[in-house]
Amino acid sequence: MRLRVDLVPQEGLSYADVVLVVDVIRATTTASAFLEAGARELYLTALRESARSFKDHDVVLAGEEGGLRPAGFDYGNSPREALEAAVGGKTVVMSTTNGTKAAHLAARTAKHVLLASLYNAHAAARLAHDLASEEVAVLCAGKEGRIGLDDTYTAGVLAEFLQIMGGYDLEDGALTALATRRTYPDPTEPLHLSAAAQALRQVGLEEDVTFCAQIAASPAVPLLEGRVGEALIFRRGQRNGSQSQIPTL
Amino acid sequence: MRLRVDLVPQEGLSYADVVLVVDVIRATTTASAFLEAGARELYLTALRESARSFKDHDVVLAGEEGGLRPAGFDYGNSPREALEAAVGGKTVVMSTTNGTKAAHLAARTAKHVLLASLYNAHAAARLAHDLASEEVAVLCAGKEGRIGLDDTYTAGVLAEFLQIMGGYDLEDGALTALATRRTYPDPTEPLHLSAAAQALRQVGLEEDVTFCAQIAASPAVPLLEGRVGEALIFRRGQRNGSQSQIPTL
Ligand SMILES: [Ca+2]
Ligand SMILES: [Ca+2]
Ligand SMILES: [Ca+2]
Repeated sequence: MRLRVDLVPQEGLSYADVVLVVDVIRATTTASAFLEAGARELYLTALRESARSFKDHDVVLAGEEGGLRPAGFDYGNSPREALEAAVGGKTVVMSTTNGTKAAHLAARTAKHVLLASLYNAHAAARLAHDLASEEVAVLCAGKEGRIGLDDTYTAGVLAEFLQIMGGYDLEDGALTALATRRTYPDPTEPLHLSAAAQALRQVGLEEDVTFCAQIAASPAVPLLEGRVGEALIFRRGQRNGSQSQIPTL
Repeated sequence: MRLRVDLVPQEGLSYADVVLVVDVIRATTTASAFLEAGARELYLTALRESARSFKDHDVVLAGEEGGLRPAGFDYGNSPREALEAAVGGKTVVMSTTNGTKAAHLAARTAKHVLLASLYNAHAAARLAHDLASEEVAVLCAGKEGRIGLDDTYTAGVLAEFLQIMGGYDLEDGALTALATRRTYPDPTEPLHLSAAAQALRQVGLEEDVTFCAQIAASPAVPLLEGRVGEALIFRRGQRNGSQSQIPTL
């Protein structure tokens, strides 16, 4: 099995099999937290306007603008807030920048798209391993087209878990991510050093970074199950011995 | 001073100041080796055809096609061969794939463009440090749009040398490159693990990888000094206490 890590989204990337999309600060961490809080499904939309178009439906709107909750939205993009949110049985429409773009890029070609973070790293790696038949790819969202130390590190943690589960051939991106993981035994260090953390610090949300640095605290893995318009629909992926017999799309 | 590392060339990247272009296996290593062998200047062209257009002039043609010397060329892209080449006082026209593209991308916006490798790492870092007034950037060539472990590692070695010389603010790419450097104390390991090395192994040129893994063996740093048509002209950069008073372009 191949293990591939793309440290920055680029037009033209295409995926043969399973993709773990990582935007650890904060979109993919927050996505798991909403599922933990009981959300039935997540709609990921790249545009705030298309999130707003769901407003009249019985949905919860979450997103960010400069790190903060946009006007008219119910929640921001904070995983601490998401975990306490009153979203039981509901649809949460999430609109974030880098993470959503990466998820849409992966969804163009991949067979299975999962949202991964440190928070659900173990469960996400296991589900990816179960679903994959030839390749597991990690696509890091990065920050405005640039590599993010936080996402690279998270890819390294996922690569470490995957390697424990089976024989993977690692390419250069995966080896770089693993090297980053090995350099920082304590995940809070690279996360706090990242440009993403610096941006949150400026708006007083540094505690979210500490939340995002928890490793494998959640079993909730958002798995792409379909689309509605431009939005991608994610529901909680089920790990199952007979996974391959259950259609997931 | 800022230290920035771009692990893969992307359209739209722009540079404020000094750029160290890295294609360690093999273009930027070979470029230094040609200067070591006495070449007066290097012309870097992205297209093999425009290299061939210099054929009637008194120049030496070097390049590669699937790792090997193209038909009608004097030399391939081997640093071992370059170091022994009869190029004293001559112009060498080099046409390679990833490294040349990265150099052209950097040359669009940067004030100073240098070609760096492990082979000239110390000299390249010192010259970059002398020339820079606000930022040193490392642009890794990668391999067909993907990150290369070999180039990422080399960027980490350059970052290490730069950090010794002065106070740099490191962004996420630089921290990732440094982490990769720290994970592999022996440079032959990441270089041999890279996709670039695997490609050379397939054409029997693995010894070039060992050559490229030498750290700081050469003081020869190709520095961009002008253009002729589409080709970039590199000459040996001089390190000098009064560098800032010597026009280099
Ligand atoms: Ca990259
Ligand atoms: Ca992020
Ligand atoms: Ca190369």
